[in-house]
Amino acid sequence: MASTSNQSVYRATTTAPVNIAVIKYWGKRDVTLNLPTNSSLSVTLSQRSLRTLTTASCSAKYPAEDTLNLNGKPQEIQSSKRTLACISNLRALRKSLEDGDASLPKLSTLPLRIVSENNFPTAAGLASSAAGFAALVRAVADLYSLPQSARELSRIARQGSGSACRSLMGGYVAWRTGELADGSDSLAEEVAPASHWPEMRALILVVSAEKKDVPSTEGMQTTVHTSDLFDHRAKNVVPERMTAIEAAIQARDFPKFAEITMRDSNTFHATCLDSWPPIFYMNDVSRAAVRLVHDINNAVGRTVAAYTFDAGPNAVIYYEEKDEELVAGTVKSIIGASATGWEGPFYEKLANVGPGVSLDQIDSRVVSGLKDGVSRVILTGVGEGPVSVEDHLVTETGEMVNN
Amino acid sequence: MASTSNQSVYRATTTAPVNIAVIKYWGKRDVTLNLPTNSSLSVTLSQRSLRTLTTASCSAKYPAEDTLNLNGKPQEIQSSKRTLACISNLRALRKSLEDGDASLPKLSTLPLRIVSENNFPTAAGLASSAAGFAALVRAVADLYSLPQSARELSRIARQGSGSACRSLMGGYVAWRTGELADGSDSLAEEVAPASHWPEMRALILVVSAEKKDVPSTEGMQTTVHTSDLFDHRAKNVVPERMTAIEAAIQARDFPKFAEITMRDSNTFHATCLDSWPPIFYMNDVSRAAVRLVHDINNAVGRTVAAYTFDAGPNAVIYYEEKDEELVAGTVKSIIGASATGWEGPFYEKLANVGPGVSLDQIDSRVVSGLKDGVSRVILTGVGEGPVSVEDHLVTETGEMVNN
Repeated sequence: MASTSNQSVYRATTTAPVNIAVIKYWGKRDVTLNLPTNSSLSVTLSQRSLRTLTTASCSAKYPAEDTLNLNGKPQEIQSSKRTLACISNLRALRKSLEDGDASLPKLSTLPLRIVSENNFPTAAGLASSAAGFAALVRAVADLYSLPQSARELSRIARQGSGSACRSLMGGYVAWRTGELADGSDSLAEEVAPASHWPEMRALILVVSAEKKDVPSTEGMQTTVHTSDLFDHRAKNVVPERMTAIEAAIQARDFPKFAEITMRDSNTFHATCLDSWPPIFYMNDVSRAAVRLVHDINNAVGRTVAAYTFDAGPNAVIYYEEKDEELVAGTVKSIIGASATGWEGPFYEKLANVGPGVSLDQIDSRVVSGLKDGVSRVILTGVGEGPVSVEDHLVTETGEMVNN
Repeated sequence: MASTSNQSVYRATTTAPVNIAVIKYWGKRDVTLNLPTNSSLSVTLSQRSLRTLTTASCSAKYPAEDTLNLNGKPQEIQSSKRTLACISNLRALRKSLEDGDASLPKLSTLPLRIVSENNFPTAAGLASSAAGFAALVRAVADLYSLPQSARELSRIARQGSGSACRSLMGGYVAWRTGELADGSDSLAEEVAPASHWPEMRALILVVSAEKKDVPSTEGMQTTVHTSDLFDHRAKNVVPERMTAIEAAIQARDFPKFAEITMRDSNTFHATCLDSWPPIFYMNDVSRAAVRLVHDINNAVGRTVAAYTFDAGPNAVIYYEEKDEELVAGTVKSIIGASATGWEGPFYEKLANVGPGVSLDQIDSRVVSGLKDGVSRVILTGVGEGPVSVEDHLVTETGEMVNN
C-alpha cells in the first residue's frame, strides 16, 4: 500500500469460519440494528473444513460504485441495507483514522471491490451468512488497517447478520444481548479459545437441500410476535443456561455442555412450533438424529454426544475426540456407505475406528430413517477465528481472479 | 331388578363417546387422584361413528372377585389401581344409598362382572381409555341407580383416566382443574350441548398404527418435571384460552374457535419437545396435515378448518358442515383413493360434494405426504353423551355374550 497513485489497488484477504450456536439466537428486539432478544453462545468450527475466503480491495481506477461478488455472482449491493450498513460503518472508522493522520492514503474515498467465496456448497444448508459477513467485515477492516479489536468489530458484523458477530473469533464465543438502545453493548466475546478445549468435534448430518419453509429473519419475528412461550425463554430460560454453559466450557464438562446444548435446541424449536402460524424446521430425519444421540448416550451409559439444530433439518452432533468411535464410529456404521463426505482433515483417525455402539442398541426406525435421509456428512471440530491470508481473489491490477 | 334371590343377575348397559380436546390436558398436579395442572376443553364426538359399549352386572352367583372384560379379553383388574378406584367409589355411593333405604337390594355386596367393547380398532390410535372409563362409570352408576349427576360422576371417571371425565357429557365439555387438594372440585361440566352448535364436524386422519414412543401418563409427567415452558403454559396461557374458546363456542364463532384450537395444539406439542428427553408425537405426516389446513384456509380466504393433535401423530380436523366441500372435499380429493374409511353416517353428503380447493393451491409436498402417510379416515362430528341401551353384553343369566 506504499503508492497512492490513481492506479494503486489496495487489497486485504481473510478467511472466516462458520459457527454453530449451542444457545440459540432467535428473535430481534431491534430489526434494523440486529439486536437480539437474548444472549447466545456458539462454537466456531474449523476452517480446515468450512470457510469463507474474502478479498476486500479498493482503487481509484474502479467504477464509482462499491461492488460485491459472491461465489462468482455479482450481488445487488445497493439493495442490501445490511451490507451497506457494514461498509459505511467501516468506511467511517477509516475516515476518522485519515482525519487524524494526513499521511494516510484516503482509502475511505475509494470504491470497494469485494470478492468472496465459500468452500462449501450453499445447498448444504449451512448458515453461510455468518461466515460471509464476518469475512467481509474482517477483510475491509484489514484493508483499512483499522485498530479496532474483533470484539469492537463484532458490533459492525452483527448489523450484517446477527450470528456473523460470533464468527469474528475462534473457540467458544458468546454474543451478549446488551442493554443499550443503540446496540453499542451488543457484542461478541471469546468465552474460551479453541486451545482451551480443542478436543471438541462436530459431525454435521446434512439432511436435505430442500428450500427452507420460512427464512430465519422472517421466522424469528413471527415467533417474537406470536409465541406465548418465546418471551419466557428469552427472559427466564436463556440467562440461566448462558451462565451454566459458560461454566461447563470453563470446566470442560462435556456432559453438562451437552445437556444444555440439546435442551436449548429443543426449547428453540418448541418456540418455533408455538409460533403462529407454526414453524417447523426439524423433520422426521432430524428426529431420528435426536433419538440416535439419546440411544448412543443410553447405550454408553454416559453423555458422549449432543445434538443441535439451527433453522433447518440438519443435525450437528458435538462430541469429544476421545469418544470418536462411540459417536462418529456409530454414525459411520449406519450411513458410512449411503452418505458422502467421509473425508477431509478430520477423517484421518475416524477411518480406522471401529463401529462404535452396536446397532442392536439403536432403534431400528432411527437406523432406517438416517440411511434414507442423510445425504452427506461434514466432519469438523472447534477452530480458530478469521485468518489473514495472501490468497487474494483480486489481482494486483484489480481484476477478479477466476478460479 | 325386582328379585333379590341368589340367582338374580342385575344389569345396566350404556354407550359412551370419545372426546377430542381443543384445549389440551397435559400434566398432573396429583398423580393418584389424576388432578390436572390446567383446565381443558373438548368436543364430544358422535357415537354413530365411535363408541364404547359397556354392560355392568352383578350377581351373588358370580365368583367373589370383580371381573372386567375388554374387547373379548379378561383384564387384570386387581392390578389396575385406576379401575379399582372407580369401582370402590361407585360401590361406596351405592352402599350409602342402601344404608339409607333398607328396601334396596344390597348390590354393593355383590361381585361385579363388567364387559366392554369398542366399535373401533385400538390400532386407530384413538384415546379409547376416555370412552372406556366413562362407559364403565356410567354403567356401574346405572346398575346401582345412583342419583349423582354426570358432573358429580365425572370426579370418579377422572380417577380412571383424566380425559374420561369429559366423555360423561355430550357437546362441548370443560374439565375445571379445581383448587382443592382432594380433587373434589376437579370436575367436568357441559359448556354447551351438541344441539347448541350441531354443525361441528371432525375428520380424523389416522396416520400410523405405530406404537407410541412415550405413553401419555409417563410423557406428561416428564413434561411437568423437566420443561421450562410447561409451567408458563399451564399458569399463563391456558386460562386465557379457556375463557376465549368458551366465548367462541357460545358465539359459534368458528374462526376464533379454530385459531385457539390450533394454537393450543401447537403449544402442547411445543412443551413436549421442550421436555427432557424430548417427546415427539407429531411426525412429517402430521406436519403435512398442519400445512394442508393452513393452505386450505389461505386459499379460501377465511378460517374454515382447524387441526389438533393428541399424544400421537393422528390429525383431527374440525370444520363446520357448511364448509364440508372446502375441507373434507379437499382432503378426499387428495386421499379419497389411498385411504379407507370414506363411509358411515357422516359420509352421505360428502359422497356428492365437489373436490373443494384446487390442489394447485396446496403445497405439493403436503399432497404427497398425505397420500403416503394417511391410511384411514374417520368421518364424524359433535355428538351426545352416554346413552342407556338394552344391547347388553351379559345375558339375563349372567353369561358374557359372544359377539
